[in-house]
Amino acid sequence: MTGTAVIVSWVTPDEPGSSKVHYGKDKNKLDHSAKGILTKYSYYNYTSGYIHHCLLKDLEYDTLYYYEIGKKESARQFWFKTPPKVGPDVPYTFGLIGDLGQTFDSNITLSHFESNPTTGALLFVGDLSYADNYPFHDNVRWDTWGKFTERTAAYKPFIWTTGNHEIDFAPELGEKEPFKPFTHRYPTPYLASGSTSPFWYSIKRASAHIIVLASYSAYGKYTPQYNWLLEELPKVNRSETPWLIVLLHSPWYNSYIYHYMEGETMRVQFEYLMVQYKVDVVFAGHVHAYERTHRISNIAYNITNGKCSPVPDKNAPIYITIGDGGNIEGLATNMTEPQPSYSAFREASFGHAIFDIKNRTHAYYTWRRNQDGSAVSADTMWFTNRYYYPTNDSI
Amino acid sequence: MTGTAVIVSWVTPDEPGSSKVHYGKDKNKLDHSAKGILTKYSYYNYTSGYIHHCLLKDLEYDTLYYYEIGKKESARQFWFKTPPKVGPDVPYTFGLIGDLGQTFDSNITLSHFESNPTTGALLFVGDLSYADNYPFHDNVRWDTWGKFTERTAAYKPFIWTTGNHEIDFAPELGEKEPFKPFTHRYPTPYLASGSTSPFWYSIKRASAHIIVLASYSAYGKYTPQYNWLLEELPKVNRSETPWLIVLLHSPWYNSYIYHYMEGETMRVQFEYLMVQYKVDVVFAGHVHAYERTHRISNIAYNITNGKCSPVPDKNAPIYITIGDGGNIEGLATNMTEPQPSYSAFREASFGHAIFDIKNRTHAYYTWRRNQDGSAVSADTMWFTNRYYYPTNDSI
Repeated sequence: MTGTAVIVSWVTPDEPGSSKVHYGKDKNKLDHSAKGILTKYSYYNYTSGYIHHCLLKDLEYDTLYYYEIGKKESARQFWFKTPPKVGPDVPYTFGLIGDLGQTFDSNITLSHFESNPTTGALLFVGDLSYADNYPFHDNVRWDTWGKFTERTAAYKPFIWTTGNHEIDFAPELGEKEPFKPFTHRYPTPYLASGSTSPFWYSIKRASAHIIVLASYSAYGKYTPQYNWLLEELPKVNRSETPWLIVLLHSPWYNSYIYHYMEGETMRVQFEYLMVQYKVDVVFAGHVHAYERTHRISNIAYNITNGKCSPVPDKNAPIYITIGDGGNIEGLATNMTEPQPSYSAFREASFGHAIFDIKNRTHAYYTWRRNQDGSAVSADTMWFTNRYYYPTNDSI
Repeated sequence: MTGTAVIVSWVTPDEPGSSKVHYGKDKNKLDHSAKGILTKYSYYNYTSGYIHHCLLKDLEYDTLYYYEIGKKESARQFWFKTPPKVGPDVPYTFGLIGDLGQTFDSNITLSHFESNPTTGALLFVGDLSYADNYPFHDNVRWDTWGKFTERTAAYKPFIWTTGNHEIDFAPELGEKEPFKPFTHRYPTPYLASGSTSPFWYSIKRASAHIIVLASYSAYGKYTPQYNWLLEELPKVNRSETPWLIVLLHSPWYNSYIYHYMEGETMRVQFEYLMVQYKVDVVFAGHVHAYERTHRISNIAYNITNGKCSPVPDKNAPIYITIGDGGNIEGLATNMTEPQPSYSAFREASFGHAIFDIKNRTHAYYTWRRNQDGSAVSADTMWFTNRYYYPTNDSI
């Protein structure tokens, strides 16, 4: 996906209604329309409303579009802005949220994110509604989460990553199909990047190539996800998209006690590729706190050589855990002590982050705590691009 | 599955025919019958014959049964012997084959295995037909493999593990459903052990509890396979089945250069459980050679402590790689040098193995090379049970 298409999704609770979206550049003259698809699902004792997904394609770049769903008195109008054409020096600002949930803290996080009108797409690193924390995975919580996030998600594109709270695997309830609610509600544009699964895919946007990986799907050698990544990485054209960003849920570097080392199984399989292809930054969620690493790698281990410590590596990404969206389980406050040398900054506060690409060489990254004002940075870093300007940017 | 049921599978190429199996204890009077199910599949330009699977259940223990498929002139009769009732001192002999394929070497391996009439079930550690090594994953190779193995598989139960050559994932051919041919041809009794997938499950047989894991399915924390294993291990009753055996395809300890460290991603996730639950032995395939380790573990690593070397551990399993069935890709002859201390014995020769349980404390293990006579052992070990008699048996 290079930004000329948008998927609009909505639910009609009582009757199917129309899956058509009317859209256009003039809010009073929506002169285009597209017909979507309709789906629904049941989960234990819950039956979903009618879920509509409508693809609007062949849009113009960098353009404000208005769109409308529903008819007559139930019609509702929203808008979105398409991203600029892909190019190496195109500035673009990504938002970053993980483990959002639908709590008071979630609400503050979303409000702070919204307060920055220049932000483009939101990179969401998994764990959306936390419906599975309710009895019988109460899927009404998926509906309420959709309503809760509408105020942002109806206007800005969200790029989804699957977290453990999307698995919704509950054989004791007869629910044996992993990711059933998520898959029905949140389609991803995976086909465009040659993926065969909605859980891993890539998107090109402005000057960034974004790769979404799946922590809870198979990733061993020879598996579909592994094969796909091996084919995807050589396709990244840094002359076109200098910034290479990876999203996943379970962090590979995490010095909190909560979920400590859970990401190891994926790290040992994929980390060498991040270094080989000079990924700029890897964003993860899962741990309900904030952490940023230095540029380090831990790929020299060969079983017998004892080389199993993370070491500084200028070709390695920065790893950022941004699982502090609000969730429902509370903050992860217990840290391993002392702070390991690979960890540059860590704090157990709720918040979100902004990755603000300036050009092919520089991006300004900020973490914004909820307890501060909406635009106050509690952690910042000037990223220099690993391909064009690989300076020692992590100090 | 505790051995009172058997699944009989066969293919009728031209017309569906009957899915019924007639069986009984008197070969001239097959006084029982069971009705099976019929399936078929297509794969790229191939369409399978009619694949029949018939479950014969409520059988008596330790009993020879004759069974017949087909009618009139096309009727064919075979036999199998049910295992003895489960109990802590019940002797039983397992065969072990991996990466069999259908070559001259495969043929010798199977012949040598057959020459031991006392062997009960065959534990097959993955990589069956190697159809995917042929153009378009020529599924005729799945048919010929079925015919090739009939001489054994029609008489002795095979317990299947999925290998990478079962994935048959080929999006370039439009084949995006992993394990499609395997799933249609080789059903596993996964429901009986509360599994939700045919790729991981358990079987109790004689004095052994056998756990089959899936190297090419998801196994991260919170995934169905991980959740299942966490529930399965506490159910193992060593008073009933003293021997705890794990099967998987990609070995966690392998000192050959071929596939070196491919099993790391699964090892770091699961190894601590093998030690915690005192698994006696883990059998794998994948590497086309033979290797046996000492009792070692490598579970002390915590990212910052540098403890990443395998160390002797009396609660750890022995790891055996038995991927030397015959395959089609040749032997893996290149080894890492020097032989690491965790490796007790390694040799790049074709062969199979026998795990001969004598009682709750002792089992005699032998590896039989194809170049020797059919019953000559090239590597042997007396196993002592980790639960009842955890001596230092690996010397």
